[in-house]
Amino acid sequence: MDAPRVAVLPPIPQVEHAVRASGGVTVSDPAEADAIVWMDPSSPEGLRDALAKSPAGWVQLPFAGIEEFLAAGVIDPGRTWTCAKGTYGPTVAEHALGLVLTAARMLHRHARQQSWMRRSEFASARRLKGTTVLLVGTGGIGAALAEMLAPLEPRIIGVNRSGQPLAGAAKTVTVKDLKTVVGESDFIVLSAALTPETEHLFNEQVIALMRPNAWLVNVGRGRLIDTDALADALREKRIGGAALDVTDPEPLPDGHPLWSIEDVVITSHAANTWEMAIPDLAERVRRNVELFARGEPLEGLVDVKLGY
Amino acid sequence: MDAPRVAVLPPIPQVEHAVRASGGVTVSDPAEADAIVWMDPSSPEGLRDALAKSPAGWVQLPFAGIEEFLAAGVIDPGRTWTCAKGTYGPTVAEHALGLVLTAARMLHRHARQQSWMRRSEFASARRLKGTTVLLVGTGGIGAALAEMLAPLEPRIIGVNRSGQPLAGAAKTVTVKDLKTVVGESDFIVLSAALTPETEHLFNEQVIALMRPNAWLVNVGRGRLIDTDALADALREKRIGGAALDVTDPEPLPDGHPLWSIEDVVITSHAANTWEMAIPDLAERVRRNVELFARGEPLEGLVDVKLGY
Repeated sequence: MDAPRVAVLPPIPQVEHAVRASGGVTVSDPAEADAIVWMDPSSPEGLRDALAKSPAGWVQLPFAGIEEFLAAGVIDPGRTWTCAKGTYGPTVAEHALGLVLTAARMLHRHARQQSWMRRSEFASARRLKGTTVLLVGTGGIGAALAEMLAPLEPRIIGVNRSGQPLAGAAKTVTVKDLKTVVGESDFIVLSAALTPETEHLFNEQVIALMRPNAWLVNVGRGRLIDTDALADALREKRIGGAALDVTDPEPLPDGHPLWSIEDVVITSHAANTWEMAIPDLAERVRRNVELFARGEPLEGLVDVKLGY
Repeated sequence: MDAPRVAVLPPIPQVEHAVRASGGVTVSDPAEADAIVWMDPSSPEGLRDALAKSPAGWVQLPFAGIEEFLAAGVIDPGRTWTCAKGTYGPTVAEHALGLVLTAARMLHRHARQQSWMRRSEFASARRLKGTTVLLVGTGGIGAALAEMLAPLEPRIIGVNRSGQPLAGAAKTVTVKDLKTVVGESDFIVLSAALTPETEHLFNEQVIALMRPNAWLVNVGRGRLIDTDALADALREKRIGGAALDVTDPEPLPDGHPLWSIEDVVITSHAANTWEMAIPDLAERVRRNVELFARGEPLEGLVDVKLGY
């Protein structure tokens, strides 16, 4: 295909710049576009309107999670769909690393103090060496987190759909074998995609298998966890704590029990802010527009059937 | 030397076990000991008493910082002195990494909230890629921290006495050139030894060179920073924040201005708790007793003149 026309909606300058960087590519109106780069993560309806009058054969979505677009029914199998999966892995993994260290070092307790703490107040603080970190989800986030954890020398276990080995992990098991490894883990980090198979993956039964001092860290999707079951386990001190960048419901309403439990840290979906995301997204768009112009396979292809 | 006699005071089982692991070495009373492994970090006086009646030619101290022992005048040049410098590098570096990520991701603000945060409340959150981290001190802690930061891809600058390049750093400058690099740094991590040269290294003039959003992280010694100058800069919002594992005075008294500044996190000298330290210390003792028995140079030799 020569000189494809690409619509960028809304017209974010850095992303338009990335589109033009491919050379010969025209930024166009959706009605004449071969592709739409959709940059509004919160408006499936806007995309539906744009698509209704567009011949675009390829649509690029802005974030990794596409549940809202799927639920709105805008993802039709007649077009090629790509999302940003893989793009934000290192950004989100860095946030997850911060949450794991917060849990290990009890930094949340320190941060809330206005008085020098006695050792007994952070007696459960530990270093990662000698602990086991379970990475549930070994895509862009899990793989990047495994690399970031390596110098800290925890034992790493990976969990994914296929059991395909995660680089840096002592072992990798399938999600069906999750229950066999939860009990040997000190920090459990969820970054799996949300699918019918993973919804409420951490339910009452699985949470009951966690060690008494283990932490559950979620940077994936809130509904990976049964929130009520988690709140019960935390309130009854059956697990060590929880660090949640995503919640169910989200935003977590004022007065929700999780807000008042000491060893809970909630970071209000902050792992990948729009400001952090734009440079990575622009780079992904630049590569994909180049691949599109050459007729080659795109990065971040959505499997419409699997839902991610 | 055959079968040296080594006193362990107080007699910590894991450390006595490490001494005996060398084979042929006897754990003995200080009055008959060739060496004393002194395991009480807070009692130079106790060590003085033990030394008064001991022929020991070598003394192993339990922590990396030895100011209290120097100040008490127990470190006489007639014996060989070793401290634990280098031993705890990875442990303290891990804590420092947690503090850098707390600063970058504004985790302290999140940890203190009991309500979903608006984006504007953590607008200054950023990822480390694209930032510059200045490591003041490139010994065991700084070197380990550089390794831990590598997968997060910040630019790293090292600062040390000699200017000897820090592995992983874009450049390394001498402490005399500190002022030339402070202004290009987003996160400044202090792990230098406390000496007459480094006391109040971060004084009013150096702090004035910091970027408006830069954070000062201290895992070295409290007196590396002029606390009053730091508190002024923070109160007047001339710098981004401070994350302090060590303070001056220490413990930081209740009501001190630093306790009430929003972007200050104080972790009450928690980077290397005694529980975290013992396995590393026992391993260092094991190696040093072996070297001592073979008459070879010991690890962590104290330069009595330099004071560390």
